[in-house]
Amino acid sequence: MRYAFLKGHGTENDFVLLPDHDGSVHGDLPVERVRALCDRRAGIGGDGVLRVIRSLALTGGAGAPEWFMDYRNADGSVAEMCGNGIRVFAGHLYDEGLVPDGPVRIATRSGVKTVRREGGLLTAELGPATFHGETKVSVGDRSWPATHIVVGNPHAVVLLDDLAEAGSLRQPPEVDDQLFPHGVNVEFVSRRAPGHIAMRVHERGAGETRSCGTGACAAALASADGDGPGRWRVDVPGGTLEVSRDETGAVSLTGPAVLVARGDTDL
Amino acid sequence: MRYAFLKGHGTENDFVLLPDHDGSVHGDLPVERVRALCDRRAGIGGDGVLRVIRSLALTGGAGAPEWFMDYRNADGSVAEMCGNGIRVFAGHLYDEGLVPDGPVRIATRSGVKTVRREGGLLTAELGPATFHGETKVSVGDRSWPATHIVVGNPHAVVLLDDLAEAGSLRQPPEVDDQLFPHGVNVEFVSRRAPGHIAMRVHERGAGETRSCGTGACAAALASADGDGPGRWRVDVPGGTLEVSRDETGAVSLTGPAVLVARGDTDL
Repeated sequence: MRYAFLKGHGTENDFVLLPDHDGSVHGDLPVERVRALCDRRAGIGGDGVLRVIRSLALTGGAGAPEWFMDYRNADGSVAEMCGNGIRVFAGHLYDEGLVPDGPVRIATRSGVKTVRREGGLLTAELGPATFHGETKVSVGDRSWPATHIVVGNPHAVVLLDDLAEAGSLRQPPEVDDQLFPHGVNVEFVSRRAPGHIAMRVHERGAGETRSCGTGACAAALASADGDGPGRWRVDVPGGTLEVSRDETGAVSLTGPAVLVARGDTDL
Repeated sequence: MRYAFLKGHGTENDFVLLPDHDGSVHGDLPVERVRALCDRRAGIGGDGVLRVIRSLALTGGAGAPEWFMDYRNADGSVAEMCGNGIRVFAGHLYDEGLVPDGPVRIATRSGVKTVRREGGLLTAELGPATFHGETKVSVGDRSWPATHIVVGNPHAVVLLDDLAEAGSLRQPPEVDDQLFPHGVNVEFVSRRAPGHIAMRVHERGAGETRSCGTGACAAALASADGDGPGRWRVDVPGGTLEVSRDETGAVSLTGPAVLVARGDTDL
């Protein structure tokens, strides 16, 4: 069976997109196919798969936005949301004329999110983040206090003078297993200037990555003075993102989203 | 500019193929384009690029085989040969009907090589290997004697009881810099049964990889008793290859070659 795919990335967080508008191509989208597609040597390669499917076809949900982002991690597991993924997903909808210009509402397993494209950059509105106090992160024999923040998914953010202090992240940082029974993304953050930070991120199940959208949000908020509105530049290894928080506490993530290739495969 | 590509691999040694039969698409094939294509996050991803071009278009060479494998490493540098790459290259020529069934001669910067497809496997005739005595390889504080073999490119082969003894190969093994001023591929080999070995490989400029075609040949020959004809099964992390040596000393490499995707890109 041959089927269409695209490949794209947001600050080098990369995805295989599978157009499957009525769900007839991939059915339940088997775990094995997701793994084969995301395999960086034997497949196409990606941090995850974004199936492009109508809400009606996936959930039968009346009243939902037309398009559903059916996101899967590279290991085949189902995931709720992905801050960079939804920006790439929306870029594809715009490029193909599947949605009109202007803000687009996209259904996800974490609820409906709005994305807009302005000046070539895509902004995803991710809703409010919540603070859950202090925790601890260790790498080897070093430990640091960390801020526990939930941006749809859980994060532990460590502030450092220098990102190199975190050392090698080939092994997962040690965290409080009781607090994070399903794991946690760990961000190491260094302030560069007022409203400007740099970060490294270790993602649960994926290791150190080039970028993490919700991680950039957590990092910006943990570095902020107070909980008021603001705007932060976040340098990640794969590029630069912008995070903002409005008067209501809602968080937005802005950055590039690029579709680099399209074709077909029998993976 | 949009142009066609394919992606394929041989035992997970993976390549981006660029059809450019008359050389009009890619001209000199800029280093930056090769790097962008091979980038595993921002591009398509591969260990190298195989440009599919007529000998006449690339070298003007009269009398040469019709097709030339213009191979580039992922960093954009020009390379002479690639034992897995030429098998994937030939598989593409067969698939597209660019050559008739039966053995096909392919021009490379390391001379003309013959490839054939039988029973779904592709065999590349790589010519004779030459032995250059003993050298030394070190990883961390451990050292081993190694056999210096040239299979078009230089190899240092270490025989171990257990492949795990080599430890982490994240850092390049230390070798004799005077003997190998341009680096060397290092294979760690363990005998599994008569005519059956397993290997790990550290490739110069690339790190530990899933497979190396000429490395499999060097590993098989270094493990052999004597220099007569023979046939060896070589398990690599990305699959299984077969190496054989005939009465004349000529070495052949046999294994799978798979094209997994095709499409177009503007990278």
